[in-house]
Formats: sequence, C-alpha cells, structure tokens
Amino acid sequence: MTSQPLVPVDRATPPLVWGIDVGGTNIKFGLVDEQGHTLAFDSVRTLEPEGPAAAVARVGAAIERLEQRLGISRSAVARAGLGCPGSMDLAAGMLIEPPNLPRWWNYPIRDAFAKRLGLSVTFLNDANAAAYGEFWLGTGREHSSMILLTLGTGVGGGIIVADELINGVNSFGSECGHILVDSRDDARLCVWGGGRGQLEAYASAGAVVERFREKIQQAHQAPPPWDQEDTSELTAKQIYQAAEAGDRWALEVIDETARWLGIGVTSLVHTIDPGLVVLGGAMNFGGPSSPVGQRFLAGVREEFRQRTFANVFRGTTIEFARLGGDAGYLGAAGYARKEYLASAGSGRSV
Amino acid sequence: MTSQPLVPVDRATPPLVWGIDVGGTNIKFGLVDEQGHTLAFDSVRTLEPEGPAAAVARVGAAIERLEQRLGISRSAVARAGLGCPGSMDLAAGMLIEPPNLPRWWNYPIRDAFAKRLGLSVTFLNDANAAAYGEFWLGTGREHSSMILLTLGTGVGGGIIVADELINGVNSFGSECGHILVDSRDDARLCVWGGGRGQLEAYASAGAVVERFREKIQQAHQAPPPWDQEDTSELTAKQIYQAAEAGDRWALEVIDETARWLGIGVTSLVHTIDPGLVVLGGAMNFGGPSSPVGQRFLAGVREEFRQRTFANVFRGTTIEFARLGGDAGYLGAAGYARKEYLASAGSGRSV
Repeated sequence: MTSQPLVPVDRATPPLVWGIDVGGTNIKFGLVDEQGHTLAFDSVRTLEPEGPAAAVARVGAAIERLEQRLGISRSAVARAGLGCPGSMDLAAGMLIEPPNLPRWWNYPIRDAFAKRLGLSVTFLNDANAAAYGEFWLGTGREHSSMILLTLGTGVGGGIIVADELINGVNSFGSECGHILVDSRDDARLCVWGGGRGQLEAYASAGAVVERFREKIQQAHQAPPPWDQEDTSELTAKQIYQAAEAGDRWALEVIDETARWLGIGVTSLVHTIDPGLVVLGGAMNFGGPSSPVGQRFLAGVREEFRQRTFANVFRGTTIEFARLGGDAGYLGAAGYARKEYLASAGSGRSV
Repeated sequence: MTSQPLVPVDRATPPLVWGIDVGGTNIKFGLVDEQGHTLAFDSVRTLEPEGPAAAVARVGAAIERLEQRLGISRSAVARAGLGCPGSMDLAAGMLIEPPNLPRWWNYPIRDAFAKRLGLSVTFLNDANAAAYGEFWLGTGREHSSMILLTLGTGVGGGIIVADELINGVNSFGSECGHILVDSRDDARLCVWGGGRGQLEAYASAGAVVERFREKIQQAHQAPPPWDQEDTSELTAKQIYQAAEAGDRWALEVIDETARWLGIGVTSLVHTIDPGLVVLGGAMNFGGPSSPVGQRFLAGVREEFRQRTFANVFRGTTIEFARLGGDAGYLGAAGYARKEYLASAGSGRSV
C-alpha cells in the first residue's frame, strides 16, 4: 500500500477508527484518524478454507500488534468499520452467501469482529465502503453525492446521496452491476448468477475476456497474433497490454466495454443525478496515466453524452477513482467515523 | 377530489402547510395539517398561454378565499410546498423548459409564489412530490424507502430513501422514465426528446397507443374490430376498455407494457433496493379493482421476478398508488412540512 503518507500518532486527531476490508484473497485494515490519515496499516491472507473465525482472530491479533507498536490503547479507538462482499444482511450483521467465500456463508461476522476487538462495528458492503472512501478522501471529496462503479472480478457499485450510502432495505442497495444494459433475448448471462443482460455480464474482467475471445472466434480467420496464441488463460490485463501495443481487436473490445458502461451510467445518472460518477476497481485499462485508459474513459463519456440531456451531461463528471485498493478500508473507517459522530452528537451510546 | 374526508379546522394540528401541484391543465392546492388531513382544497385552470404570473395571482386569490372561509389567518400557516413539471432548477427555484408549459420557460416560480403568499416555499419536481405524497399518506406509509413510477402523458418517477427525496444535483434525480429498458439499435425514441430505448418510450400513455397501433398495422390483416375502426384518435383508456372487454390485441399490448416496466423496475430496485415500488399516474389500466389492472400488476411482478434474486424479490412489494391525482399537492405539503420541522428543530429560520 498506501496512497497516503503515514502520519505520526501524536499528530492524529480523534476519533480514531479501524477500517477493515475483507476480500477473497486478502483482508486489509488500517487505523484512520479524523482527517483520513492512515496511522497504521497491515493485511493478512484471507485463507478462505480455514473459515471466518480463524480470519477474525488473525486480524484481531494483527490489530493488537499495530496498536502496541504505535503505543495507543484500545480506548483511544472509537469504532471499527467492516466492509465485506455480499450477499449479506446488514441489519443482522451476517454474511449470507458471498460467492467468493463459500465456507463463510451465514456467519455473524460483524459481531465476531465486535467481540474480538471490543469495539462497536459498522457493517458495510465492500463496494459501498469503497464508494465512501472515494467520497471522503478520493475523487469525490469535493462532491455531495457520487456513484462508484468497481470494475474487477465482478462489477460492484456504491451510491452516496447527500453523505448517506444507499444500502437498501434488503442489503442490496447500489448493486449497480445488476442494472440492465442489454434487453435482447440472447443477452449475456452473468457468471455470478445475476439476470440476463445486466452490466456485470459485460463489464467485469471475466466478461471482457469472454467477449474478446468470442470476437476472435467469430472472425473469419483469427487475426495475428491471436491465431498463434492460446487464449484459454487470457486475462483482462493482457487485453489491456495488447491494446497499449496497438492491437485493433483489443482496442475494439475495450471500446465496446466503454459503450456498455456508458449505457449503465446513463440509467444510474437518470436515477440518482449525483453530479459525479467514479470508475474504480482493478480493471481500469491503465487508468488516467494511460492513453488506453483515457480512451476508455472518453468512450464512457461519449456514450453517456449521446443518451442523456445536454444540461445533465454538462453537470456530470465521469472520472477514475484515486485510492486504488485502499478505498475499501478507508471508506469502512470513514463510514464508521460518520456513525460515531452521529451517535455522539445525538447522545446515543456508540 | 378528494380521497380523504375534510377535517374541521379546530381539530387540525399545527403546522398547517399549503401544497400546490402545477399541471399542464389544472393547478391543485390544499391546506394540509400535521396528520395529512386536507382542511381545504380547490383547483384553478392553468391557462398556460396567459403565462405564469397570472396563474400565480389566480392561485393566490383562491388561497386567500379558502383561508377566509375557514377563518384562519396566514400566520397559522408555516410554509408552502410547490410541485412543478421539469425541467427545472430546484436550487434557483426556476422552471427551465417544461415541455407542457412552453410560455413559462425560465420563470422564477418559487419566489413568485413566495412573494404572493408571504410564505417560504419548498420547490419540488411534480413526480417527486407525488412520490412523497404516497410515501407520507398512501401506499408507502409503512415504509422507510420507496420508488414511485407515474404512468401518464410521460413516465415520471420519485425516489425516497430514508425519508429523503432524491432530487439530484442537476434537479434531474428520480427521472425513472429515462432509464434504459431497450438496448437495440432500433429501440423506440421518446416523444419528449429523451434518448433511445428509455422507459418513457414504452410505458407512457402515448407510447402504449403507438405500440398498439403498430401491432395492428403489422398484423397480416387488422383483426376485428380494429379493421373497421379509425385508430388515429385512440387513447390508452380505450385500449384498457377493449382489454376489459377481452380484446386479445389490447391485452397483448398491456402485457408487453408490464414487461417493459418490469425491466425498468429491476434496474431501479437493484440501484435503490427500497422494498416498495408504487405504480401511479392516470394510466393504471383500471388499478387494483380491475382484472386488467391486476393482470398488469402481475405482469410487472413476474418480469421482475425473472430478472432479480430470490431474496430481493421476496423483500420487494410492487403495488398500485392510493392517492390518485391528490398525491401531488399532498406530497408537496408533506415535504414542505418536513423542511419546516427540520428548520424549526435546528433553530434555523423558516
């Protein structure tokens, strides 16, 4: 990590909050102060097969080590924020059936962390946590509302309206990967079991690879170099690298991805009108520093322009995210901080 | 009007609020108390060609007459709420370019009403006002969040999340008629100038009539009785009446309307996850008391069921609206009441 310099603890301002971001491979956690500075950060392997209780214990021990090293006591920490992949039951604090954590289903993870850490825990969807991170400290910091789309293994989303996350009454709010972008009868199916024609089936990393492979197979003769290559292990990153090298087929599939995303962005903006749409996640085709990334972003904006009204287009910024893989733990910490401040202000116990 | 019994003013509870609903044909207004009871109601013709200032004066005079008849002074009224058709600039209090009020463009209607009435005015999009009405007093009264779709000349929408309307930073929030439901290159265009394939181009009254007419024209031979009828003046209501009488073609076009709506509902629910979607507006195919209305509602639910996840389907109610044409002024009053209470609570002046 980290996108921010670490700050000495004696310069930190209360409340301090732990942010924890549970992923399929790693669990990241950082101690974050009122200004969003990360005072300490570490990560552990998720080790999914060992189950959630072992992971909670591992994170708890690592957090204690970090606090000891910083010389701060647990009483200096106001709260923890915890972002996890869905499906989940936010009110109950439960993981329900996260596809990438099959042995963790129906586990009361919020309360397990609360007990291990001795802290109240704010429980969040991982993409919503990342959205709040970008909103608090990243691309969204000057905005009052925002939509984040995370492009990676799946397509996640997080929506903030006037400083509040849209979490949903069934813990299914901001699931922007599941809005319809293709109404045709033969529209693509999402690998994670979503409905036909939904954004995730077009703009996830796996979907981009699949669409690329189909494009080559449908060509009368596979174009070079793809006639010589085994594409069965192809990744979205390799497609990006081919595009950087000027490969026409790779550029075409990235342009088409931008168009599908532009359709999705249009429906989302016409629902929320947030003024800002942020593209995050690992699959950013090089991001703002790459010509391919810039072409991708321009493609999303152009599709949106064609489908919206002139004043809405003018009043809406579409940009890349800034915090990278840190957005999740930072946003979990930020939303926990927000809950702490609200409960402190209202006199409720935290 | 009205869907509610009038209440004697001496049983009314403060704050009293005027709700005003500006439409292309009529302007409705009612004095509403804390419980949502309407103490007085009237409407005037909009008379669009005479311009907005004349309409404001007409409403102002009618409101004074009603207050005199009730024997209440203006000081007993806390605020007014004003719902208008878009496009608009909510922060500036301006109508921008409402298609059905062409001579009212770029008019500062909020401040004109505030000056005429001597009251602070809460300014709202008309469909958002109707949504808040259903949320406060109608189908949504037991819910914390809700989406309203209004089916009529256009398709409007209003979204409430945790008691807050999604108004948008460009005054374009909750424009649910403009989400994409048809991605095909030859998708329908909205008559109001929206983009291709958007919900309004399929589920407005005009779109239903157009789709019905095309269906008959595309039939090898127009089916009876349509081979004898002039369909150039056909209305959505006549299609509903034909469906009530069992006409297969009318039922087919209503079933297809339900499917397009079900697609739109899916994208909206996956964005907001409100737990409740309400179908309002004049085009309800007879509503809950009609077999055709029930078939229409069942069709929307079935399309949604096929496209969503089992737990989200179980956790989402789709129902008809209850307040009919009163939802607009009631919701404008309700949102003004909410603003009044918030500003009173925070010590800000109203």
